[in-house]
Amino acid sequence: MVHARFHAPDAHAPGEVIALPADEAVHLTRVLRLARGDRIVVFNGRGQAFDAIVQSARKTGVDVVIGSPREAAPEARVSVTLVQAVLKGDKMDDVVRDAVMIGVAAIQPVVATRSEVARGALERGRRRERWERVAISSAKQCGRAIVPAVLEPEPFEAISGLVDDRKLPGPALMLVEPGSQADVSSLGDLEGPAPREASLLIGPEGGWTPEETALASERCRLITLGGRTIRGDAMALVAMAALFAKWREY
Amino acid sequence: MVHARFHAPDAHAPGEVIALPADEAVHLTRVLRLARGDRIVVFNGRGQAFDAIVQSARKTGVDVVIGSPREAAPEARVSVTLVQAVLKGDKMDDVVRDAVMIGVAAIQPVVATRSEVARGALERGRRRERWERVAISSAKQCGRAIVPAVLEPEPFEAISGLVDDRKLPGPALMLVEPGSQADVSSLGDLEGPAPREASLLIGPEGGWTPEETALASERCRLITLGGRTIRGDAMALVAMAALFAKWREY
Repeated sequence: MVHARFHAPDAHAPGEVIALPADEAVHLTRVLRLARGDRIVVFNGRGQAFDAIVQSARKTGVDVVIGSPREAAPEARVSVTLVQAVLKGDKMDDVVRDAVMIGVAAIQPVVATRSEVARGALERGRRRERWERVAISSAKQCGRAIVPAVLEPEPFEAISGLVDDRKLPGPALMLVEPGSQADVSSLGDLEGPAPREASLLIGPEGGWTPEETALASERCRLITLGGRTIRGDAMALVAMAALFAKWREY
Repeated sequence: MVHARFHAPDAHAPGEVIALPADEAVHLTRVLRLARGDRIVVFNGRGQAFDAIVQSARKTGVDVVIGSPREAAPEARVSVTLVQAVLKGDKMDDVVRDAVMIGVAAIQPVVATRSEVARGALERGRRRERWERVAISSAKQCGRAIVPAVLEPEPFEAISGLVDDRKLPGPALMLVEPGSQADVSSLGDLEGPAPREASLLIGPEGGWTPEETALASERCRLITLGGRTIRGDAMALVAMAALFAKWREY
């Protein structure tokens, strides 16, 4: 039988009794209607998963007893930071969900010129907190024991690598439309073995501006993904699947 | 300027005056509010696209004058038939949309043991017609001039290749959960150059049954896509992106 999985950041070692976060307690009691004595799986979001047993389940909180360590879904061999330009409406939720599912290591939202939203609006709407909840929810579904970090949204200039190179780990690949620049390679032209880490930059619905690609090209390899138009909110998933195939993750 | 694209199956040659299908006429007049004299692009769904000009636009119908042939998004070099087990609710709509976007050649829905729907219900709900409309809509968005065929849903046994091999063109790859069978390969282990055509079999939310994989394994290669759980409705997109990368489509 497959046991339901819950995010329990306080889970460290067998034998401990810990409380689930409030969201997870609601999910356990009201959605799944689990109770004292039921078996579950918990993961701490930093790589550890355990069997666990519900010790008490009230609407005000759920305590669980941590049992044996448990194997979680393997992490990808290439640690990919997805630098995703903020998309319209709820589309970023889907991108975060899908990126976590396929195996991203971290997500750096950026406000690009054509992102139709301002950083202030993201902050007022507590969007980062929302994306963090989406990441947790997706990790629960896909079997990972790690919850990828969703970083604070930044303006594009701040992450393009000219200001602070640490924000683009490994080789940085910027996805662009075919034919938009002279120095664009196909994804298949990437040489060498899989890197240990990489950054993948995906633009907003309207694409990167010429200024943005020019700025990024000092630090990033510009790559394309065939000639058919991919929806903005599917681009990260398609690009990561293609890169993982290229890098023999599959 | 990018002109709106419409599906016009009757478009064959420059100079013709043709009527748009009713759905497309509604889209042109009521959604995009275009009128006589406006420039559009039409594609006939079989590979040809043309510039065109609206000659008359009434609620009862739209006539357009076909202009010069126009280049459409390139078709994939490998002609992939997606054999997709029917998913719950509207999830097949998303699979059809995404498969067309990434470049599928045809879609064969199948009713698998764990598909929670019967063929009769699909027929009564006119689901195939609905999926055909989704395919047209996706072709409009992604720039293709071909609308992939959505075939009549079949029971799994009828397409598994033992009854009628023509229903699984080229090498047939069945996606399965990792560790579910002894003779499973990783996608990266596929040998040789890209085939001219291929079939890709994707199961329902609960996966293929052992009986189905056993039946299919006589004809299909069983492959996996890493150890993280991919949502049923994202599986086709992820697998096609990975295969296209493997086959140097990108």
